[in-house]
Amino acid sequence: MPGAHNVADPTHSWIPHMPLLVVGSVALDCVETPTARRDDVLGGSCVFFSYAASFFSPVKMLGTVGEDWPQEHTRFLAARGIDTSGIEVIPGGKTFRWRGRYLPNMNDRETLEVHLNVFGEFKPKLNGSHKEAKFVFLGNSSPTTQLSVLDQVPAAQLTVADTMDLWINIQRDELGELLRRIDGLVLNDSEAKLLAEDENLVRAGHAVRKMGPKFVVIKKGEHGAMFFSEHEMYVMPAYPTPQVLDPTGAGDSFAGGMMGHLASLGRFDPQSLKEALAYGVITASFTVEDFSLDRLASIDRGDLDRRIADYKQMLSF
Amino acid sequence: MPGAHNVADPTHSWIPHMPLLVVGSVALDCVETPTARRDDVLGGSCVFFSYAASFFSPVKMLGTVGEDWPQEHTRFLAARGIDTSGIEVIPGGKTFRWRGRYLPNMNDRETLEVHLNVFGEFKPKLNGSHKEAKFVFLGNSSPTTQLSVLDQVPAAQLTVADTMDLWINIQRDELGELLRRIDGLVLNDSEAKLLAEDENLVRAGHAVRKMGPKFVVIKKGEHGAMFFSEHEMYVMPAYPTPQVLDPTGAGDSFAGGMMGHLASLGRFDPQSLKEALAYGVITASFTVEDFSLDRLASIDRGDLDRRIADYKQMLSF
Repeated sequence: MPGAHNVADPTHSWIPHMPLLVVGSVALDCVETPTARRDDVLGGSCVFFSYAASFFSPVKMLGTVGEDWPQEHTRFLAARGIDTSGIEVIPGGKTFRWRGRYLPNMNDRETLEVHLNVFGEFKPKLNGSHKEAKFVFLGNSSPTTQLSVLDQVPAAQLTVADTMDLWINIQRDELGELLRRIDGLVLNDSEAKLLAEDENLVRAGHAVRKMGPKFVVIKKGEHGAMFFSEHEMYVMPAYPTPQVLDPTGAGDSFAGGMMGHLASLGRFDPQSLKEALAYGVITASFTVEDFSLDRLASIDRGDLDRRIADYKQMLSF
Repeated sequence: MPGAHNVADPTHSWIPHMPLLVVGSVALDCVETPTARRDDVLGGSCVFFSYAASFFSPVKMLGTVGEDWPQEHTRFLAARGIDTSGIEVIPGGKTFRWRGRYLPNMNDRETLEVHLNVFGEFKPKLNGSHKEAKFVFLGNSSPTTQLSVLDQVPAAQLTVADTMDLWINIQRDELGELLRRIDGLVLNDSEAKLLAEDENLVRAGHAVRKMGPKFVVIKKGEHGAMFFSEHEMYVMPAYPTPQVLDPTGAGDSFAGGMMGHLASLGRFDPQSLKEALAYGVITASFTVEDFSLDRLASIDRGDLDRRIADYKQMLSF
């Protein structure tokens, strides 16, 4: 297979890769930064997650697009070894579109337009292959939708979800039910503060964990990530890169690197989770160096491993 | 000496402590947070630095106060073993006062009032003992004042300065001269961006280093610190604490922990600098847990070392 050297390192093939499934948005993004702009580029949580995870482990994606979806995007993802059979094309429908603008600090952004289109009616239906997934990531969508996926993967060993302020504000009860059923939650700092109603991130992280999940990861954008479980709490800085062109998808790439690493190991003990967080940080550090998936598409597993080694050295004293 | 067990660990007495001098502000602070308020508490860069450094190494402080200065503050500092003979009391003068208010995120603040008072006329005059200092920290004051101190310590082996946006804006030439003469600069993230005219902190840090100093440390508040030298660049997260009562003095405590550790070792090779940054991070993490010096005054070197060990573990994967 062309490009196969980029996909889940064959030297690790002895490791019991766990089937990894991601459900989430598949989108066309319009991104404005202080210095550049891109229209209709490949995006969406499911897409960034899948591509990031594919460096570590096979991944199956489940999402929905409209008739306007360029089939070349599906081929691009499939060429990575990603199982794209779960991308449903809705006749007469339009693909989810997001338009956003980054502020000069390249960490904060404003959403200019959101058109949910077919994603607004997304009712994930898992096929037999999807249902075999042992590791499942529920990309940001309504808790109701996320719960409907959980109902279809009773044999899953590790379920992790993302969420956003919208659901915290309008579906708090459903989100509460989700939190009691998942193993891990990944959310950003402002969302954690909102959900916990606490401005201190350490207290907020613990408070969210007490709502149900065994662990919580708080993403802090350019400032890294924090991890909370019953017996552990730690913080990892972002890998400092001089080139931040487009942070879109950094959070989903982070989750993809994290879950991909765990799926490649087939376990999620504390040490594996910590390594996974580091892989998430490093994968995201590449994503932000160009628009859409352009930077991730230009690197291989060796680039990730070299940067991980550098990061490890950076944090040793 | 009472309390001597808190001061520069006697088990390290075989290490060639280098005389450490700090020149900077001695202040009375009024601090408002979303939940509490303190008036006229002990503050100032010279004070926070000295107290933080005193966990590691003997330190001499040079500053100026007015007739309103409570002598109990001097006794409190002297009881730590800090050489306070350089605190000059100006007859008829008033002590530097600062009033600030923290926003709910406890990371951003607004300055409500600044009265430089005697600090506005501060012309540091070093005595014989001060001039023997081999390690010198120039707390935030005008580059002109900082240069006048440099002129008086020709035998110093390590000179590090802090600065602020005011001097970047109104004394850029003098600051440029200072940068060419010092070994290290410590400044916060917004100041680094302003000085380098670059929103990316990695590029900004390198750009500031190229202005002269051998190394640059960018303080990022609750997000930690970054280090830049010709051959190294790394980031260290802040130690996550659930209790942030008052961040005032965190930056100066950071510098004090860093310089105190270096002075205790008597060297500043890359590995020592990295350890020193970690000690700076950890010292500052205690400072923010209460107002003024209250938290630092309640801990001993053992508490610092235990948190350092925890921090090291936190960053290992």
